Amino acid sequence: MLFFGGDYNPEQWPEEVWAEDVALMRQAGVNIATVGVFAWSDLEPEPGRYEFGWLDRVLGLLHEGGIRVALATPTASPPPWFTLAHPEALPVTADGIRLTHGSRDTYCVSSPAYRAAARTIAGRLAERYAHHPALAMWHVHNEYGTDCRCDVTAAAFRLWLQKKHGDLSTLNEAWTTSFWSQRYSDWAQISPPRATQYMPNPAHVLDFRRFLSDELLDGFIEQRDLLRAANPDVPVTTNFVQGGWVSVDHARWAEEVDIVAVDHYPDDAGAGAEEQTAFAADLARGWGGGSWLLMETGPNLIYTSGRMHAKEPGRLTRHSLGYVARGSGGAMYFQWRQPRGGAELFHSALVPHAGPDTPVFREAIALGRTLRNLDVAATGQPTARVAVTWDAPSWWALQGPGLPAGDIDYLGAVRQAHRALYRAKLQTDFVFPGVSTDLGDYRMIVVPHLYLVSDEAAAAFRDYVAAGGTLVVTYLSGIAEPDSRIRLGGYPGAFREVLGMRVVEWHPQAPGATVALSADLTAGRWIERVETAGAETISLYADGPLAGAPAITRNRYGSGSAWYLSTALTDDSLQTLLHEIAVSAGVEPVLPDLPPDVEAVRRGDLLFLFNHGARPATVGDVVLPPGGVRIRSAEVEGAPVGRG
Amino acid sequence: MLFFGGDYNPEQWPEEVWAEDVALMRQAGVNIATVGVFAWSDLEPEPGRYEFGWLDRVLGLLHEGGIRVALATPTASPPPWFTLAHPEALPVTADGIRLTHGSRDTYCVSSPAYRAAARTIAGRLAERYAHHPALAMWHVHNEYGTDCRCDVTAAAFRLWLQKKHGDLSTLNEAWTTSFWSQRYSDWAQISPPRATQYMPNPAHVLDFRRFLSDELLDGFIEQRDLLRAANPDVPVTTNFVQGGWVSVDHARWAEEVDIVAVDHYPDDAGAGAEEQTAFAADLARGWGGGSWLLMETGPNLIYTSGRMHAKEPGRLTRHSLGYVARGSGGAMYFQWRQPRGGAELFHSALVPHAGPDTPVFREAIALGRTLRNLDVAATGQPTARVAVTWDAPSWWALQGPGLPAGDIDYLGAVRQAHRALYRAKLQTDFVFPGVSTDLGDYRMIVVPHLYLVSDEAAAAFRDYVAAGGTLVVTYLSGIAEPDSRIRLGGYPGAFREVLGMRVVEWHPQAPGATVALSADLTAGRWIERVETAGAETISLYADGPLAGAPAITRNRYGSGSAWYLSTALTDDSLQTLLHEIAVSAGVEPVLPDLPPDVEAVRRGDLLFLFNHGARPATVGDVVLPPGGVRIRSAEVEGAPVGRG
Amino acid sequence: MLFFGGDYNPEQWPEEVWAEDVALMRQAGVNIATVGVFAWSDLEPEPGRYEFGWLDRVLGLLHEGGIRVALATPTASPPPWFTLAHPEALPVTADGIRLTHGSRDTYCVSSPAYRAAARTIAGRLAERYAHHPALAMWHVHNEYGTDCRCDVTAAAFRLWLQKKHGDLSTLNEAWTTSFWSQRYSDWAQISPPRATQYMPNPAHVLDFRRFLSDELLDGFIEQRDLLRAANPDVPVTTNFVQGGWVSVDHARWAEEVDIVAVDHYPDDAGAGAEEQTAFAADLARGWGGGSWLLMETGPNLIYTSGRMHAKEPGRLTRHSLGYVARGSGGAMYFQWRQPRGGAELFHSALVPHAGPDTPVFREAIALGRTLRNLDVAATGQPTARVAVTWDAPSWWALQGPGLPAGDIDYLGAVRQAHRALYRAKLQTDFVFPGVSTDLGDYRMIVVPHLYLVSDEAAAAFRDYVAAGGTLVVTYLSGIAEPDSRIRLGGYPGAFREVLGMRVVEWHPQAPGATVALSADLTAGRWIERVETAGAETISLYADGPLAGAPAITRNRYGSGSAWYLSTALTDDSLQTLLHEIAVSAGVEPVLPDLPPDVEAVRRGDLLFLFNHGARPATVGDVVLPPGGVRIRSAEVEGAPVGRG
Repeated sequence: MLFFGGDYNPEQWPEEVWAEDVALMRQAGVNIATVGVFAWSDLEPEPGRYEFGWLDRVLGLLHEGGIRVALATPTASPPPWFTLAHPEALPVTADGIRLTHGSRDTYCVSSPAYRAAARTIAGRLAERYAHHPALAMWHVHNEYGTDCRCDVTAAAFRLWLQKKHGDLSTLNEAWTTSFWSQRYSDWAQISPPRATQYMPNPAHVLDFRRFLSDELLDGFIEQRDLLRAANPDVPVTTNFVQGGWVSVDHARWAEEVDIVAVDHYPDDAGAGAEEQTAFAADLARGWGGGSWLLMETGPNLIYTSGRMHAKEPGRLTRHSLGYVARGSGGAMYFQWRQPRGGAELFHSALVPHAGPDTPVFREAIALGRTLRNLDVAATGQPTARVAVTWDAPSWWALQGPGLPAGDIDYLGAVRQAHRALYRAKLQTDFVFPGVSTDLGDYRMIVVPHLYLVSDEAAAAFRDYVAAGGTLVVTYLSGIAEPDSRIRLGGYPGAFREVLGMRVVEWHPQAPGATVALSADLTAGRWIERVETAGAETISLYADGPLAGAPAITRNRYGSGSAWYLSTALTDDSLQTLLHEIAVSAGVEPVLPDLPPDVEAVRRGDLLFLFNHGARPATVGDVVLPPGGVRIRSAEVEGAPVGRG
Repeated sequence: MLFFGGDYNPEQWPEEVWAEDVALMRQAGVNIATVGVFAWSDLEPEPGRYEFGWLDRVLGLLHEGGIRVALATPTASPPPWFTLAHPEALPVTADGIRLTHGSRDTYCVSSPAYRAAARTIAGRLAERYAHHPALAMWHVHNEYGTDCRCDVTAAAFRLWLQKKHGDLSTLNEAWTTSFWSQRYSDWAQISPPRATQYMPNPAHVLDFRRFLSDELLDGFIEQRDLLRAANPDVPVTTNFVQGGWVSVDHARWAEEVDIVAVDHYPDDAGAGAEEQTAFAADLARGWGGGSWLLMETGPNLIYTSGRMHAKEPGRLTRHSLGYVARGSGGAMYFQWRQPRGGAELFHSALVPHAGPDTPVFREAIALGRTLRNLDVAATGQPTARVAVTWDAPSWWALQGPGLPAGDIDYLGAVRQAHRALYRAKLQTDFVFPGVSTDLGDYRMIVVPHLYLVSDEAAAAFRDYVAAGGTLVVTYLSGIAEPDSRIRLGGYPGAFREVLGMRVVEWHPQAPGATVALSADLTAGRWIERVETAGAETISLYADGPLAGAPAITRNRYGSGSAWYLSTALTDDSLQTLLHEIAVSAGVEPVLPDLPPDVEAVRRGDLLFLFNHGARPATVGDVVLPPGGVRIRSAEVEGAPVGRG
Repeated sequence: MLFFGGDYNPEQWPEEVWAEDVALMRQAGVNIATVGVFAWSDLEPEPGRYEFGWLDRVLGLLHEGGIRVALATPTASPPPWFTLAHPEALPVTADGIRLTHGSRDTYCVSSPAYRAAARTIAGRLAERYAHHPALAMWHVHNEYGTDCRCDVTAAAFRLWLQKKHGDLSTLNEAWTTSFWSQRYSDWAQISPPRATQYMPNPAHVLDFRRFLSDELLDGFIEQRDLLRAANPDVPVTTNFVQGGWVSVDHARWAEEVDIVAVDHYPDDAGAGAEEQTAFAADLARGWGGGSWLLMETGPNLIYTSGRMHAKEPGRLTRHSLGYVARGSGGAMYFQWRQPRGGAELFHSALVPHAGPDTPVFREAIALGRTLRNLDVAATGQPTARVAVTWDAPSWWALQGPGLPAGDIDYLGAVRQAHRALYRAKLQTDFVFPGVSTDLGDYRMIVVPHLYLVSDEAAAAFRDYVAAGGTLVVTYLSGIAEPDSRIRLGGYPGAFREVLGMRVVEWHPQAPGATVALSADLTAGRWIERVETAGAETISLYADGPLAGAPAITRNRYGSGSAWYLSTALTDDSLQTLLHEIAVSAGVEPVLPDLPPDVEAVRRGDLLFLFNHGARPATVGDVVLPPGGVRIRSAEVEGAPVGRG
């Protein structure tokens, strides 16, 4: 059964509204409600005084209505009283400014007082509800990611560093502290990155980001273990959040949750919303090892360029089924009912301010019906023959100081690679060479901006190619060891051997620059002086400062081949090139001859067809109305869904 | 008699300059000087040591010269010694940074030490000068508006909240503190909005802005009462400042001053300067209940886009007479003589660095002559049949967090409505439904972005329409109750009944978007999904995501009609539409067939004609030279003025 | 012998790399290495524990290799232990945020603890190495310029102010503290400029910048004297840095160094790089009274618009020889070898990450050969008949608050004047009227934006013109006395007499504005209302608000003539005009009829010809390849150099 539902915050409403909520949920086919995410100040209005009665009644009502519950621990937002009791547990910025309550996420995860308070409230919930019949899963915290630079954090950071580096001289070496006289002679001299005169040390910044991810993970594990202990049968998760600045390494965290749950909010109101949906879902499926759950998205809004874009009719349906097609165990939203106040009072909800007699709620009813009729459990998961690499530490390193250009964008590069494959109708997975050197049995792996690569991962890529795989490496890959020290002798360091070439100079170009390549390709923004050493040149720079020099190379290595892209290709050129490479690697699209606006996804026996365009589209014997969706299986022809 | 003069700061100059000042003032016809606004450190150079001798001499010289004095209390800028004596009385930012002296306005209005010091210096001035023959009025402080987030402010804020909300549970309800676990269990947990992790609570922010306005008003009242006590015959005022971020609710403050005095600096060097002048003057007149005084403007500059635009010849005259035409009791400037140093050393003055033999001073002499010849006291005030609403708390709410679009602009919307009426040559008033439900006897009221509306105000609008009035409501009106909680059931909440329609979805558009409407109208930036419920559709969306749906509606209600504009019309479209509505409501322009560049204003018997264009213009038998002004009355044909 | 080399940081590398370093240096002809700039934490890893062994070995290796050493005192970057020992010695921002280590430059120069630590480490180095045979010079600190606003700084600032102003009443007068009630009654009330409510006092800000320059200079002198005492024969310098925000007055500092050493990093990847190189070199030569040394530039990068632009082949050569042509005693770079980590891990080096088998190192080898063959010592220095004024305090004043336009750009104006002369092929010097009233025997002096002018300097300019000189003064010159108080009676104050005109109004224009002038000139951004008083009008405003009024005037004064440019001419117009004025003043280009892309510089007997264009160029009998350089002398025809 697919989950359909989302965040339900009855504490925002008088009790008389709750019955209407459950009735409307039933009308829409909602079968799960995430409860209690921000309820700490209602559950424990004063230190040690608990009010569980209302939650008992809410869970009872939901249970009676046949709606299951993802019960949250409310630890992402301590109540105001916590600030007064433990001012030292509030987060501090790099400038030394101590933040206060009045929003959310005002805690320092390294603070013993915070951790104790979190354990206590989680423990109380576990004690009371671990065997509640409505309980479907535990939802720990919310979107872990809060940063702090306080002295308590500093102490925790030092312990983490000691564990990682062992002794100071190793750390000094790894961080190249001789640069700018930063050599540490005592652990006490090390703090989180804080306001300083000029650029900080990139290795220091990177280690702090790794520490923060681990420290937050400790906070999660502590709660998870406590909840598991109360009832080992209830799965425990926390909602991962995707976005432009992410503090945790989800690929590592995924090993610690019972199910990967993801919040996803696209930030582009155009076709990018659908492309981001596919990207987010494929990435989440990768983290989850095949399965995952969309825990939150906006029912009827896309935050884009400072405004809340309302979705066009049918788009809620297409997005929701898009996540499901790509493996999600359901479709869940933030939030059920639009509140009368609070910071997100205009964030979209299934029941908006105008009430249930509205387009969004009507579409939700139809969507609930469709989801109810889908039997995905029986059909398995999507499969792919192409993979793209994802590595949070490489991302963090490329968000750091001192880089050769200000517009380096790891997330953008990975998204672009995925988008090119998406537009080429190639079903795509993700692999995580920073976490596992198992590269699967893909026919083709694309490696965008994989800045940090360990020797082990480099060997795995070589083995993969030697065994017949096709590898496509882009610039800014293989540059550094995992501790961020540069690999000498020419970029892309770790990949030089498999690629049969090296780079002797980077030439970052001005934003908006265009560079022509041979083979009808176009690039911009970044070019490199490449020297081949065994590789053949597939495409040359046709103009610009490196005219005549190699731009794209291919190296036969063992039974496979390894491509190097030394430049930032345009979307069209990258799509063309990756499509050609895929064809040569024997990778085929989901369906042949799909129209441009049609997205096709196979999940087991099911075939999902989405028409994202404004005109009807034909796929075989299926006619898709504008904005329409069809779901087919070998056995059963699915009913048309969406607004068609 | 009209006032003509402005800020005079003799303390910036050696005493030998003062006699020349008075001689030049007499030459220019200056009849009032605002003295002492920033003189605290000269009046009380050390704590408790006063130097009044120089001020005695200045007032004596002015009095001998026939120049009256608006004597200021210098409390807007405590001297440096105050910082050292009372560091706790300095303002603190939301980040916790305590500001220091070295500029101006460095005080926390909630600080007992500051308030005591302010009372003392004001009391000394009252004692010494309350019966001085030159004294025309008291000018308390300067441009009240200083913000502070310190702990002393926090305590005052809590008292204000207790008075407003009574108990914490009411406050928790009003602020929807259940959102994000913000429920307060002790008043001590409430602070001013301070740096926090993420978006603050909009209701918290709004209440703080209301508190700040009231707190500053307390500071004013304290001084006013003390000055009144010293001589009840001398009017007391303070200079309101208009701008993009205003901390006080002038409509409420207006009830506490003896005359509304306004500082106005347009920020557009083009035709916007004249439109802003008209707007500022009409708004000030509204605050003043018909009368007001222009206390400051720049003689020869317009601050615009980071530069000091020098006014074209004659523009000082046109602006000054523009304020007067719209009801000002005079024309006053900051400042008399351009200083040799200080932060505003290049701010324009009547006597610039180059001395009196300059265009600006020559124009001032001519202007002084014109003002002397005008007998406005006998002719009464401007009258209008159209009004626009103004509501500072709605503005503040729309400057708050969490809004559906980043380019929502309350001030811009009100200015645009006023501009459309201005260009349609319709004399316009303002009404203040947040302060008074008396909506006057206007034939037409335009309601732009009136986000907060009380039940009483909503009823008043209904009654107004029922009784035959024409109401024009724009999007983002009627959304919330005064405490900022959303009115459920569909926007525009408070106006749904009178408008006979509701809005079920907002569709904020990208900046620069254009949407065509039927009836030859054009809009952009904001559209809405409207469902009529009795109203007729006047204009439909002709393209975009809502093509075919209603955009502008009209509802017959009682004897009147109520229009709803669900979209951001262009200037031209809004002017066309409001003009048509005005005609249908029986509102007529000041004069028929006025050329586009000509502004006509009636003040009682006087008719002011301004030619803001670069070519001569003809109005009946009057030929206005480029940039020229004519003032006519039933009795007297005014002499041509300006540069003509 | 010309120096060739740069910063060498062996502490960033394992000792086994050092021998390769020396071998490569010898291969490239490197003859000097700057050592130890950021080595404090390696030299004194713990307070009082010194490790000089490695430095002994490095200096020994270099000496054996025939490479001399510029030995640095490492005081620009105290080690982390210093922070813990002396937290009060860390710098504090205007917001009160205390910065910490983790970058570089984290010290307060006014701190006694810092000064003592700096003296100690410098003293130890002096003691150990003052007579080392490799020692060529002392390089004190690095790029002095660190700002601090702490209380210790405040105390030092007060002492400086007392010395300058004598008593508080003089300071109050000089700062016009009566503006906004800032009058000080106790020295203790004065702090560095810190966060305050609104604009600070410009005179306060300017005096703080002067203080900071002097305070940093004290720090330098202290070390210099100590090093000189250890061995009077070794010259002492520190590297001046050019840029957009410079804290020290290099013209004054130049008097205290044994040789002016300059770091220069152009910030324009186009032709601006060459123009900035010429500008920087001419300015440095002016500071040095004819001689100077390029201490740092980037071998193969131009930081521009947030990216590291890699130089085109041959450009390293042209830039390096450009500095030498304009008087540098060598060409030195930051740094020798690109590091594996640290904040500047991608900053270009002579030996890049890819190693010596790279374009940059190959070009370095060729360049080393060229430099070795040049005997500039015998040929003297460049000479010029035109000079431009430079005045750091005027720059600082025009970076201050309260100015009439936000785009006033002192550096830009001086660069533009220099660029116009550069393009007109006129060899140019700089003069420093704020430091010396000796204006030399130039035929023409250009005075851009010389905002602050003393009476003595004004007299010197008058005498210069009276004696036959040609003076060209631009707007924003002569406005204020050195204490920043405005000169009354009309701008440009100090120059009114010699120019025979005055300005009664400034008219800053919108960015991008264009104003036509007669005589085929074009301007923008800034125009002025000029009244002549003896001067003749050379060019009128042809459109805009001042159409018909004088724009450019010339005044015969004694035997010379003085021009006034009241407007911001375009580059082309300024070049045309200055060229015409130069011709009339009898100034001739380096060579007649030079092609546009060719730069010619005479240094004594040597003639340097640079072809900065992409096509071959002919100069007399010399054919310059694209990007090529030729060096000729009366005696010896230099071999072609560069990539040709």
